[in-house]
Amino acid sequence: MTEVLYAGSFDPITLGHVDVIQRASRVFDKVYVAISINTHKKATFTPERRADFAKDALADLDNVEVMISDELTVELAKSLGTTVLLRGVRGSSDLDSEMAIAGLNEKLDSHIQTVFIPTAADYRDLSSSMIKEIAKFHGDISKFLPAKAANALKNKYL
Amino acid sequence: MTEVLYAGSFDPITLGHVDVIQRASRVFDKVYVAISINTHKKATFTPERRADFAKDALADLDNVEVMISDELTVELAKSLGTTVLLRGVRGSSDLDSEMAIAGLNEKLDSHIQTVFIPTAADYRDLSSSMIKEIAKFHGDISKFLPAKAANALKNKYL
Amino acid sequence: MTEVLYAGSFDPITLGHVDVIQRASRVFDKVYVAISINTHKKATFTPERRADFAKDALADLDNVEVMISDELTVELAKSLGTTVLLRGVRGSSDLDSEMAIAGLNEKLDSHIQTVFIPTAADYRDLSSSMIKEIAKFHGDISKFLPAKAANALKNKYL
Amino acid sequence: MTEVLYAGSFDPITLGHVDVIQRASRVFDKVYVAISINTHKKATFTPERRADFAKDALADLDNVEVMISDELTVELAKSLGTTVLLRGVRGSSDLDSEMAIAGLNEKLDSHIQTVFIPTAADYRDLSSSMIKEIAKFHGDISKFLPAKAANALKNKYL
Amino acid sequence: MTEVLYAGSFDPITLGHVDVIQRASRVFDKVYVAISINTHKKATFTPERRADFAKDALADLDNVEVMISDELTVELAKSLGTTVLLRGVRGSSDLDSEMAIAGLNEKLDSHIQTVFIPTAADYRDLSSSMIKEIAKFHGDISKFLPAKAANALKNKYL
Amino acid sequence: MTEVLYAGSFDPITLGHVDVIQRASRVFDKVYVAISINTHKKATFTPERRADFAKDALADLDNVEVMISDELTVELAKSLGTTVLLRGVRGSSDLDSEMAIAGLNEKLDSHIQTVFIPTAADYRDLSSSMIKEIAKFHGDISKFLPAKAANALKNKYL
Repeated sequence: MTEVLYAGSFDPITLGHVDVIQRASRVFDKVYVAISINTHKKATFTPERRADFAKDALADLDNVEVMISDELTVELAKSLGTTVLLRGVRGSSDLDSEMAIAGLNEKLDSHIQTVFIPTAADYRDLSSSMIKEIAKFHGDISKFLPAKAANALKNKYL
Repeated sequence: MTEVLYAGSFDPITLGHVDVIQRASRVFDKVYVAISINTHKKATFTPERRADFAKDALADLDNVEVMISDELTVELAKSLGTTVLLRGVRGSSDLDSEMAIAGLNEKLDSHIQTVFIPTAADYRDLSSSMIKEIAKFHGDISKFLPAKAANALKNKYL
Repeated sequence: MTEVLYAGSFDPITLGHVDVIQRASRVFDKVYVAISINTHKKATFTPERRADFAKDALADLDNVEVMISDELTVELAKSLGTTVLLRGVRGSSDLDSEMAIAGLNEKLDSHIQTVFIPTAADYRDLSSSMIKEIAKFHGDISKFLPAKAANALKNKYL
Repeated sequence: MTEVLYAGSFDPITLGHVDVIQRASRVFDKVYVAISINTHKKATFTPERRADFAKDALADLDNVEVMISDELTVELAKSLGTTVLLRGVRGSSDLDSEMAIAGLNEKLDSHIQTVFIPTAADYRDLSSSMIKEIAKFHGDISKFLPAKAANALKNKYL
Repeated sequence: MTEVLYAGSFDPITLGHVDVIQRASRVFDKVYVAISINTHKKATFTPERRADFAKDALADLDNVEVMISDELTVELAKSLGTTVLLRGVRGSSDLDSEMAIAGLNEKLDSHIQTVFIPTAADYRDLSSSMIKEIAKFHGDISKFLPAKAANALKNKYL
Repeated sequence: MTEVLYAGSFDPITLGHVDVIQRASRVFDKVYVAISINTHKKATFTPERRADFAKDALADLDNVEVMISDELTVELAKSLGTTVLLRGVRGSSDLDSEMAIAGLNEKLDSHIQTVFIPTAADYRDLSSSMIKEIAKFHGDISKFLPAKAANALKNKYL
């Protein structure tokens, strides 16, 4: 049985994230989605709202569980009893930093193993920061975000 | 007849930008250069000064028109009656994010097409942020920027 | 008016190539598609058959002209009276070699300018060599190639 | 329960491959390792010897099964009753082609999902072709290959 | 005789930096390590403390000299009587920006030559910013930093 | 004192190689240029002719010595009494394989250290294989190769 932990800021969750999680939910027995509380980045939404958007978008997936975490990812994995971290990769520009993070996590805890799932071609262009930029200019972001997150982001920049 | 729109922050315009626009002016019938008003980045120069530097550097090119824009790029293209966006690429580290932006713009408006022009080898090393760093340390930036922009940047860090 | 030359081996033409040419036909006034006779690579199809596949797949596009060439690309451009070369780019792994070729062509003829069009996300995974590998194992290649090329390739590996 | 298929030419299996398979054997319930019979590349070892090297190197791993395959990978996965393909990635130069293959496989069979495992830093430099080059010059390859494969390759170039 | 200058923010120095400097100290006759005072980035440690961490970590290396600099790197090189700049590279994602900086420095002073030393595989995952992120969450950073820097960083986030 | 070994196939030497060697000759006390006899690639020129082209192009550089080698690079370095290998890098697409080779060489002999010199912007587009392709089509290769190599290559494809 394989349980995986997908931690990120999800500020907010995009259709690209949702795609990765749907794929993971078919591959693995259980997928934990952790909204990380970043201390260093000014977030657009509170962790509670980010978790709410994620839960809403992932409600159909029985083996997916959304949570908020203020722990180091490897510590959260230990608490959850898993050793497998999941990350989506959109292309080679993502990969180098993702492999660095994977390497650091393994140095922090040698039992930790990271696995990558490639994002579907159709979602490779999405990043939360670009979508926010479009929202600021009142562009239509409904193709990039799940409904609840899209509405909330639109309201931020009315 | 092909008209293209080259939108960016141009804060300030570099000799690399000028090179891309000169090349585009030979390939296309008309090149619109739009100084985008970014809401999220603290700019070094006001949009008006950035437009002034660009106009000065591009004065010789009859089919180039400089403007200031606070619209989403795809909306500006629509107002101008063009569907073709132009971007310069300096290398593979640029390309992934440029392709992501091109993909997002096409999702926002399916008629939009982005074309890339490779920057000349001699200008591939230039980025506005690195040039500003050199200016802060009173390095000679006259090889990297058109004259008017170079003088203005020098005066910023006297 | 902008006329462009898209030269390649097209052995055979893929749906990714067709996508790039369709996009180019909307951006530019004329698109020349040249089947290059490579002296160094053992081709799967003769230049005549490759041209036939391309013509069949591009028949709807009025401003596209398919030809066979045994000239250096910059020489062919000169004969056709154009100075603009077109290439599709699928991602950063393509870009470095494409920029090298663009640079060499400009060194061969300083009037030559290369422009890149990004391949649609859905076709970024296609390469003629991978598709041939699938055909050898009798996989279904009809999603990757235009009909005539797909049938011909299937018959190669019956 | 998650079963994965790791197909490749393994000509011969390196310590980098072994590392990826060890990691996978801890993450997944079952790992099938398939020696693909390539029709187009001249192999150094027969499929039977390649399978023998792999079995020898992986003998300790209970949930790993080595086999020879002349099928398309997606067909083999179907026969084995799995939908998950595994690949190791050594860095960004690997990733683009790996994502292209993953995309093609998903187009061939929409149920197929590829997951990537990053190779350990210490093995990222290994490629079968470089190791063969070293063997030709009688360099010491015992740090790069499992014992049986190393001996066989040495004997090839006595 | 070859003397090289390795300038950076070293905020703080990591085991990856130390590895590069150790390698350089074996290759070159003299290695100057300059702690650059960045005007634009908010540093975690004062230049004096950063220099102290570096001196402590490099005390064993006779031909290495640590200094603080508020000059442009090419100016500092001139004062030191060297024309060779040294930089570590961790992978392809580093290289493009490193080559851009090398190109700019050569444009600023045509006698300047940059050389790169590849970071050891085991240290390729380290970046000062990721290590600080781990420290904020009270993760164990002693595997990533020399002792004095590790202790100081831990104390920052008690 | 630093002596470096630059080994490669140099089939034939290009102006890009010459540029790297000129730069190295200013940085290091001695530069050995070794024409490697590849067992696996069909060479265009014999090692003797390749050495002749290199000697002719590098005649002005007093501290450069050209030789032919059929040894593994790390063995040749040992015979020459140096531990430093030199390689030119043209960009990120080069770097990953260069770092892999550097890593393998260090595994073969732990005293070996590789250093990289970035190729000048103007020569980053050159590769021996592309230049040969241009020569086959009777393009003008005199901008890419030193005179003697250019003439010899032209005569190959009369």
